Amino acid sequence: MSPGEGPLRGGIDLGGTKIEAIVVDASHTVLGQFRRPTPHEGGPDAVAAAMAEAMGEAAEKAGVSTQSLTGIGVGSPGLIDPRTGVVSNAKNLPDWAGSFPMGARLADALGTKVSIGNDVSVGVRGEYELGAGRNHNSVLGVFWGTGVGGGLILNGAEWQGRGSAGEIGHMVVERGGARCPCGNRGCMEAYAGRSAMESEARKRQKNGEKTKLFKLMEEHDRPRLTSGIWERALEHDDAMAEELIDRAVKALGAGIASAVNLIDPEIVILGGGLGVRFGERLGPEIQKRMHKNLFDKNHPPKFAVAALGDLGGALGASLLVLDA
Amino acid sequence: MSPGEGPLRGGIDLGGTKIEAIVVDASHTVLGQFRRPTPHEGGPDAVAAAMAEAMGEAAEKAGVSTQSLTGIGVGSPGLIDPRTGVVSNAKNLPDWAGSFPMGARLADALGTKVSIGNDVSVGVRGEYELGAGRNHNSVLGVFWGTGVGGGLILNGAEWQGRGSAGEIGHMVVERGGARCPCGNRGCMEAYAGRSAMESEARKRQKNGEKTKLFKLMEEHDRPRLTSGIWERALEHDDAMAEELIDRAVKALGAGIASAVNLIDPEIVILGGGLGVRFGERLGPEIQKRMHKNLFDKNHPPKFAVAALGDLGGALGASLLVLDA
Repeated sequence: MSPGEGPLRGGIDLGGTKIEAIVVDASHTVLGQFRRPTPHEGGPDAVAAAMAEAMGEAAEKAGVSTQSLTGIGVGSPGLIDPRTGVVSNAKNLPDWAGSFPMGARLADALGTKVSIGNDVSVGVRGEYELGAGRNHNSVLGVFWGTGVGGGLILNGAEWQGRGSAGEIGHMVVERGGARCPCGNRGCMEAYAGRSAMESEARKRQKNGEKTKLFKLMEEHDRPRLTSGIWERALEHDDAMAEELIDRAVKALGAGIASAVNLIDPEIVILGGGLGVRFGERLGPEIQKRMHKNLFDKNHPPKFAVAALGDLGGALGASLLVLDA
Repeated sequence: MSPGEGPLRGGIDLGGTKIEAIVVDASHTVLGQFRRPTPHEGGPDAVAAAMAEAMGEAAEKAGVSTQSLTGIGVGSPGLIDPRTGVVSNAKNLPDWAGSFPMGARLADALGTKVSIGNDVSVGVRGEYELGAGRNHNSVLGVFWGTGVGGGLILNGAEWQGRGSAGEIGHMVVERGGARCPCGNRGCMEAYAGRSAMESEARKRQKNGEKTKLFKLMEEHDRPRLTSGIWERALEHDDAMAEELIDRAVKALGAGIASAVNLIDPEIVILGGGLGVRFGERLGPEIQKRMHKNLFDKNHPPKFAVAALGDLGGALGASLLVLDA
């Protein structure tokens, strides 16, 4: 099929930092895309309006109307009710502790069907169907970003357990260890999540340790220590950044090894904001750390960085339309 | 069906300490059983001869010949090739580093078909089909014994990964922590496995700490610190035994929580020699410890002690005959 042929679909990746919208054709070629920051004021209403705007821009770039799309898939943080399109308790988004009818709102604004899935789930599914996980029967997705999310594909289908499976970030790597944003102690995310890493850096700076992290953040006009700021700090040989990244890598290695020992998947895929940015640079060290704690050291799983990169979330979301 | 009706099957549970053989009818009622110690001299040949003898005794008690059984299922430690019946690298058995054609040897000796499976797998399957896991779609089995083994039933079928899934004992609970019999550091089994607990007790005694554990072991003529010896030591308020059991319980809680956060199963079943012996007494404390590290504290899985008790391994093994 040539690009643009067949029915077109939309995909939106809603993140704590940015909204990414795309239009794809039947062979998953991206015909139009648009990215904008996630609004931090105005709550769910403002976020939904910004998503509709981004989708409209992506459709315009593809030369079509949103009404002409077969449907639009959305990957969102929080608890999703896929039947009703209601998103609840999206902690990484501002003022979103309650429930919001995101599916209905977007369907009204864009004039087509909208399907909503969990952001990590659709990201793992995208990698499984279109990216690094193709031709594998079992996949462990590790999404290293603000938190550390996980997704499991077993026998070619997502394993959701009773609805909450995949919380690899909350596997214990250090019993009684560092406090995690979730409230528990010693979770992998307490060492490796971007948010927890930032809290630790602030604490250390307050205690008199030197770092360029926050100066770089101000210079680049960022509201927080983004993956880009961490990368710049490493390029400036910032000792605290190096230490905290190393601490994260060790936690990731131990946590991923635990998951591999339990599940024995064919492939581990490292994605997420930090995962995609640091995958090439730190992947080998994460693998080395994982290997130290593998039970069956002669048969390590394959290890790959998410192949769809920044567009993976939106591409994965666009696949939801095919289920509808 | 009345007891004894329908085709009869055999089941053998081969453990590091004992061999348990049973004959069951079509409704899984035990018609005959026999238990004997696992020989510690003579290698695989002696073990196979002892297994054949135990099976013969169980059949005699059931009033049948082994030749009349539809087949015999065996749960064995080590790496199993289910097609050939070859058992390799059974570390908990003496002189069994290589491969041994256990299936063929037993079939010759007993005059019927023999199917072999992994001991933990058949134990979990037994609980799933006949015990505490009945009517559940997903089960996490935790077999707390010499080591800590695990088994997963997902969507009603055993999940084996690439062949090595379920190694819950080697999930990391303490990064860089205690040395595990597997060689890695910080595994759950390094704190909770009977074998690791015994090593730790010996080390502490050597360092001058007092304990009744080894005196009780000699008095009861046991070659090692069996689950019964640990229980007696607790009844004598032995401080070291209390400490080491508490250390094991904490590791089990953290490791089980990690597995639940990743898999989100309907039920956790605690089995194995220590699990069956201490399940009622320590189950609530293990659950409490698990709860501390659950991500979704509002939806803990059910928690149950293996319902088939000591016969679980042999009953689970007997189910292998139904697949053949």
